[in-house]
Amino acid sequence: MTSASGSEPRFIGIDLSSPVLRVAIVNNDGRIEERREVRIDADQLLGQVAQVVSELRGVNSNIEAVGIAIPGLVNRQTDRVIASRDLPLAVRENLHSEFMKATGARVEIENDANAAAYGEYKVGAGRGSRDMFYITIGAGIGGAIILEGKLWTGASGFAGEFGHITIDTEGLECECGNTGCLETLASGPSIVRRANDRLYRDGTSSLSKLAINKNFTADDVAHEAKNGDDFSMMMIERTGKYIGTGVASVLNLLNIERVVLGGGVMDAGELILNPIIQEARRRAFQPCFEATQILAATLGADAASIGAAMLARDATA
Amino acid sequence: MTSASGSEPRFIGIDLSSPVLRVAIVNNDGRIEERREVRIDADQLLGQVAQVVSELRGVNSNIEAVGIAIPGLVNRQTDRVIASRDLPLAVRENLHSEFMKATGARVEIENDANAAAYGEYKVGAGRGSRDMFYITIGAGIGGAIILEGKLWTGASGFAGEFGHITIDTEGLECECGNTGCLETLASGPSIVRRANDRLYRDGTSSLSKLAINKNFTADDVAHEAKNGDDFSMMMIERTGKYIGTGVASVLNLLNIERVVLGGGVMDAGELILNPIIQEARRRAFQPCFEATQILAATLGADAASIGAAMLARDATA
Repeated sequence: MTSASGSEPRFIGIDLSSPVLRVAIVNNDGRIEERREVRIDADQLLGQVAQVVSELRGVNSNIEAVGIAIPGLVNRQTDRVIASRDLPLAVRENLHSEFMKATGARVEIENDANAAAYGEYKVGAGRGSRDMFYITIGAGIGGAIILEGKLWTGASGFAGEFGHITIDTEGLECECGNTGCLETLASGPSIVRRANDRLYRDGTSSLSKLAINKNFTADDVAHEAKNGDDFSMMMIERTGKYIGTGVASVLNLLNIERVVLGGGVMDAGELILNPIIQEARRRAFQPCFEATQILAATLGADAASIGAAMLARDATA
Repeated sequence: MTSASGSEPRFIGIDLSSPVLRVAIVNNDGRIEERREVRIDADQLLGQVAQVVSELRGVNSNIEAVGIAIPGLVNRQTDRVIASRDLPLAVRENLHSEFMKATGARVEIENDANAAAYGEYKVGAGRGSRDMFYITIGAGIGGAIILEGKLWTGASGFAGEFGHITIDTEGLECECGNTGCLETLASGPSIVRRANDRLYRDGTSSLSKLAINKNFTADDVAHEAKNGDDFSMMMIERTGKYIGTGVASVLNLLNIERVVLGGGVMDAGELILNPIIQEARRRAFQPCFEATQILAATLGADAASIGAAMLARDATA
């Protein structure tokens, strides 16, 4: 305990998974009390983290530890970062000890999807459940499993790869080398690809004017769907059905009591959540479907930083 | 402890999952010391079980408890049998207490796939692993999950339904109501259906003469494959690929250290195990594949009775 006596401990949560370093002081209950956002300069990452941690320690002297969510595979037994697609310059194997040295603090690192899952479990849509499956749908599709209050990361730390379950044996090739992964149909870029293919073939849509320049995003599809564009609504609905197919398999395999869905694609709200639930109901065993709650995440972009802070808190126990 | 002092306790394991009641005295290490097989008469099931338990108590006076593997969904919190397709006449909700009354023994009941998984985990191909996924491929495809030594049965006892993960969103209708379940392609009856369809279309095979009478079984396909019949070998290999597709999804989701495959279809041996492993390697994340061992079960038809006995043993702890 480095906190002043009589004061509640605080934790710093850091999310490295976007181009912006998201940093927050989080209290013992998982509430954010102070936040900073800094555009990441990959060559200066260690210095940036040290700087912001030092600054926040000036704001609150009860900081007990720092949690960092990493866009890569983290082996928490060894605290080694195995691989990272999104942060290639800065993330290396000994990142954990480098962060400890740079900040002078106790640091816990975790994969970003796992950290976000833990945040939702402790403070967000997972609260009150014992076991939870977390899904994040954005540029890629990730997942994480929490069983009896703890992250279940498997034999070598990689459990929860929901985006890479096969839902179509004869499907498209995936970046991972497999064919027919859920991610080839339901990630942000896959939605754009499917929408482009289909706009080219037929259909008029408010996306058409964007498509001429080939520069609309999955966010645009969600936005146009919310504005009532039929074509965009159909694209979002189909995406939901693909995700629901994967959710049904998870329900049948794990009979899990809660499924929480986050990530940018879920910004479409009920337009995507409803078809996910419908398809899961249609495909899963009835008792498995009835035993679960399928909910949208509630922490938004703060999930990973809050979760990282909570992991730093709970690692003391 | 009802056992005579100085003597090792023994357990009776009973498997109700086939037309034959398989019963064994199992010692503390999971070895079978004595066995009985009785053709099940569904109307007399309670009496048959009471009779054989009484008989085996005459053989060994150190019987401490009885474990029974049930072909149906068992909620172990309430010890209620929820549903059973295979034993409709005899299995009812309060089977557990009826068995206790009939035998005068402490009785533990468990789903048959879970019991078989536990047997393989303690005494068979799962031995030495911490976490294990068990798959049984026969008339249906079942599964079970063991995490850190314990059966993971999920929120309501139904986890492990490996046969009902979707591997083809547009696939055939399954008995469970879903479409494209693994079971529609790789169970024993599915192998027969696929073989019949294809024999009708083309191909000569040693199965053709059986097919004329439409009465070959998946066992026949495996047998002819072992005898070198090209067509049968192809059917078994494709079945292995479908199963391997499902295994890859399990590896990506659970990053589990061991996968054990049992059931009648696995009697084809390496002819089916090799394509399962190859397809899992091709489709799973490399670190997930490398962290696992995929093995054939070793206890054969004794898995469920041994596992039920081991569950009865470990419930005392």
